[in-house]
Amino acid sequence: MLNLASVLREEQPRINAVLEKEIAALPESAREVARHTLSAGGKRLRPLLAVLMGRLFGSGRPDIYAIAAAIEFVHVASLIHDDVLDNAAMRRGILAAHTVYTPTVAILGGDVMLAHAASMVARLNDPFISFQFAEAVTQTAVGEIDEFNHLGDVALPYEKYLAIITGKTAWNLRIACELPAHRAGAGEEEVRAAARFGLELGIAFQIVDDALDIAPSTDTGKPSGGDLRERKCTPLTRFYMESLPAGDAAIFAEKFKTGSFTEGEIAAIIRTMRKKGMDKQTRDLAEPHLARAKEALASLPAGKERDILEQVPDFIKNRGA
Amino acid sequence: MLNLASVLREEQPRINAVLEKEIAALPESAREVARHTLSAGGKRLRPLLAVLMGRLFGSGRPDIYAIAAAIEFVHVASLIHDDVLDNAAMRRGILAAHTVYTPTVAILGGDVMLAHAASMVARLNDPFISFQFAEAVTQTAVGEIDEFNHLGDVALPYEKYLAIITGKTAWNLRIACELPAHRAGAGEEEVRAAARFGLELGIAFQIVDDALDIAPSTDTGKPSGGDLRERKCTPLTRFYMESLPAGDAAIFAEKFKTGSFTEGEIAAIIRTMRKKGMDKQTRDLAEPHLARAKEALASLPAGKERDILEQVPDFIKNRGA
Repeated sequence: MLNLASVLREEQPRINAVLEKEIAALPESAREVARHTLSAGGKRLRPLLAVLMGRLFGSGRPDIYAIAAAIEFVHVASLIHDDVLDNAAMRRGILAAHTVYTPTVAILGGDVMLAHAASMVARLNDPFISFQFAEAVTQTAVGEIDEFNHLGDVALPYEKYLAIITGKTAWNLRIACELPAHRAGAGEEEVRAAARFGLELGIAFQIVDDALDIAPSTDTGKPSGGDLRERKCTPLTRFYMESLPAGDAAIFAEKFKTGSFTEGEIAAIIRTMRKKGMDKQTRDLAEPHLARAKEALASLPAGKERDILEQVPDFIKNRGA
Repeated sequence: MLNLASVLREEQPRINAVLEKEIAALPESAREVARHTLSAGGKRLRPLLAVLMGRLFGSGRPDIYAIAAAIEFVHVASLIHDDVLDNAAMRRGILAAHTVYTPTVAILGGDVMLAHAASMVARLNDPFISFQFAEAVTQTAVGEIDEFNHLGDVALPYEKYLAIITGKTAWNLRIACELPAHRAGAGEEEVRAAARFGLELGIAFQIVDDALDIAPSTDTGKPSGGDLRERKCTPLTRFYMESLPAGDAAIFAEKFKTGSFTEGEIAAIIRTMRKKGMDKQTRDLAEPHLARAKEALASLPAGKERDILEQVPDFIKNRGA
């Protein structure tokens, strides 16, 4: 059976070539900021899902690659905007775009990438695609606003947490599966199942990502405890809170609210979280979503591509573990 | 003959009702920031152009109003992003969105408005509209990046200045005329003429706006000399430079580059610019564009709407004069 990693290795150069072509098609003043962030790497998980889903329904045509590239553009533009707003100096081990090109060029360059991505899909002459694409961009930004509005809130209900990550992360993976299925001629039911597959994968992906916040930075390439510093309430925060006696919990909640942990405190919290297996506990929350993703996938036509896609839930589950 | 101002008065409530409906359709977390900036007023010139152009070609249907509203959304979203990037505390006499809602919510709220506007036009099921719309958003951001990249550059060539304002201002007015003409069933030649009309109007609009930078702030609602403070090179800057002896010009260029004018110096420069009629000189640069706009309009079908649209060039020419 074909192995996901080898398919990824095989597809990456083709995906990167389409991305490079679209970077070259950008107006000059946005090209550098886009290339800087896109060339920083990234697994190209979203484009890969798109390409596989298109092929599952029998299409390997260039429009599937155009959809794949547009979705990666949206992903990267939202990273660029995020880094400005979080004031993060680094991204994947290199300087963040705004650090190199100023926040103004990073924000406007992100705007250009979003608009160019919309042009790319508009060229496909398919209003369903244009509409769902715009909806995904909307939901991504809405998820980020909701996250921002709840920073420091240790009592964030789990349902609200799910709503936030569904917006900021899962919608993009949703369209990465939904739009290629639609474009390749899948039936309505199948398009819905493809969308569900991507959405549930996306939720699981973010939950695992949040668990990785306490992984050693040598594994992830970013400093441990970023969410604690940025006051992002994730399942880790909740599990930690629940493990504390009431008095300590109140102190933790106050420091979390005001972002006033010392580096020493953050290191100690991370040690406790690891020792008590809270990263594992967090990863477990991804399980029902991975199960639903598999269920949705099982309703799609069998074949080589489905075999490969079946490996994605486990790839996500074991990421960094 | 119907007077432009009275048509504007008559149309504004209808346009505002559509805008309000679309604000209500926004996800909750972006609604307030959108309403805040939209309700700050504004002439609704772009929507009015759209409505008149649709009607000129025989359509007063709701989709023309949807196009009009989407274009105003893009305009307002770009104002919101601009104010964050310029760090402008006020907008049209009220607090700028980012001052009230934080820069993060303003940037992401602007993203939501842009994406929602793309959804609105995608709903029309017309790839030409989706494509041109995305192109206009791209060109608007590109114009702003180019402007930013040339801040402080007193030697900005006039052609480059024109390219910048064509992007940041004129593309939006272009689609405000082009898309309704297309949607209302105009022929290809007519759609091109409508686009030309909007584009040339937009260029003229920005030139006049730049002349108004030295108008008394009681006339414009914003402090005089903003472009000098923000180091934006406009025709005023060029005329002023040309009026100086070489030594003084070098000093001016250096202070312009570094943004180091005192308030007293800015006041003195503005007085000189006014005395020498440089605002009038700047306005004159709008003339060829207004003439081309009129020429383009003359090729469109005669009737009540064309009579009203014929008044727009003079309205722009005399704005604030």
